[in-house]
Amino acid sequence: MNFEFKPIGMIRSCYTDKFGIPRQPGLVKSARATLELLPPFNQPEAFRGLAAFSHVWITFVFHATATSTWKATVRPPRLGGNERVGVFASRSNFRPNPIGLSVVELQEVNGTVLTLGGGDFLDGTPVLDIKPYIPYSDSLPEARGAFAAEPPRPGNSVEFTPDVEAKFQTLETAARPNLRQLISDMLAFNPRPAYQNNDPDRIFGTTVFDLEVKWKQAGHVVSIISIS
Amino acid sequence: MNFEFKPIGMIRSCYTDKFGIPRQPGLVKSARATLELLPPFNQPEAFRGLAAFSHVWITFVFHATATSTWKATVRPPRLGGNERVGVFASRSNFRPNPIGLSVVELQEVNGTVLTLGGGDFLDGTPVLDIKPYIPYSDSLPEARGAFAAEPPRPGNSVEFTPDVEAKFQTLETAARPNLRQLISDMLAFNPRPAYQNNDPDRIFGTTVFDLEVKWKQAGHVVSIISIS
Repeated sequence: MNFEFKPIGMIRSCYTDKFGIPRQPGLVKSARATLELLPPFNQPEAFRGLAAFSHVWITFVFHATATSTWKATVRPPRLGGNERVGVFASRSNFRPNPIGLSVVELQEVNGTVLTLGGGDFLDGTPVLDIKPYIPYSDSLPEARGAFAAEPPRPGNSVEFTPDVEAKFQTLETAARPNLRQLISDMLAFNPRPAYQNNDPDRIFGTTVFDLEVKWKQAGHVVSIISIS
Repeated sequence: MNFEFKPIGMIRSCYTDKFGIPRQPGLVKSARATLELLPPFNQPEAFRGLAAFSHVWITFVFHATATSTWKATVRPPRLGGNERVGVFASRSNFRPNPIGLSVVELQEVNGTVLTLGGGDFLDGTPVLDIKPYIPYSDSLPEARGAFAAEPPRPGNSVEFTPDVEAKFQTLETAARPNLRQLISDMLAFNPRPAYQNNDPDRIFGTTVFDLEVKWKQAGHVVSIISIS
């Protein structure tokens, strides 16, 4: 017997492309997202009392990567992309049910819209549920995290060409807050697929908000070459 | 657009009745449950590497309370059952999508079966997903828990009649491990609905494994009167 769920909300996020999204929420603090309740769930009453919690769990659908096929094992980026672990021993988005789970900072409750900090959501993500984070049951600092015991560290330094630097004055608007910081924080975590060769001339690209960002990477130095 | 998910596993639990189930996982340490993968997901490979994690998130369906109706506000037991908060500010099982989320101790991985400690699952619960608990992203001891800041405390003392005491020698079997401890731990957390009068002659009942348990409650003293 299958179960059918309705989207109760929708995420608007700076991440408009999968590539470059941090692998866990909370890594890129400059990332912000909003979550708006969808009809018929868009009742401000449904958030009564929520603002007293500092963090919330968002249960969502990996809508961009949902497929009808699945594999029993996956290759987590944390293990270099070569070693396989069971799909249920990973947070991979290629899962039997494409359900994602992220804890994020709750920055503001405004009517039927939440402002969230530090998310790892793709823009347009459908949301299935919102639950308050309850420290006494959810926070287990002594838990063993196996191969994911330590947080990924921002291993890259990120450089901007003078042209790009100059552009931020016009690109950084209210609709794109902290743009320079955000791009810098994102690319400090190596987004390059682990199986790709270390070719310093290869141009990588992604989108942030409505902007296309291109860069090259030589060793641990990321050079942003254009934003348009 | 709705989303359809398949049960990937099924819970077997000591809790065969909703009444008396602790309100969060981890409260009743003597509770154990098993989770078995269902076809076509029952591949031991899907658990490769999982045993190195001490805790897992279980995303499941509140199958016994799923309804097609929902309310924007609910009355959490923690607030005495009278005050209303938004459904998304609570962990109530009466939600727009009846999706539950519990972190539990992973005690054993055996083929396609997990042994879980401290769960709050009803027997027969369908499971949608299993994810490893990753302390660096999931553990936020400094988070604000609002009205659920402190764990519920076991406020009742639990007494057994001599008749019941004598029965445990035959009732406590491998299939019903720690039965006396389990019943004692369960009922130490007040399961009586907050809106019910404090009538010391009223008989309450629930089931644990295949057994029917009956008790009375006077103030904070729970007296187990029969187990059959």
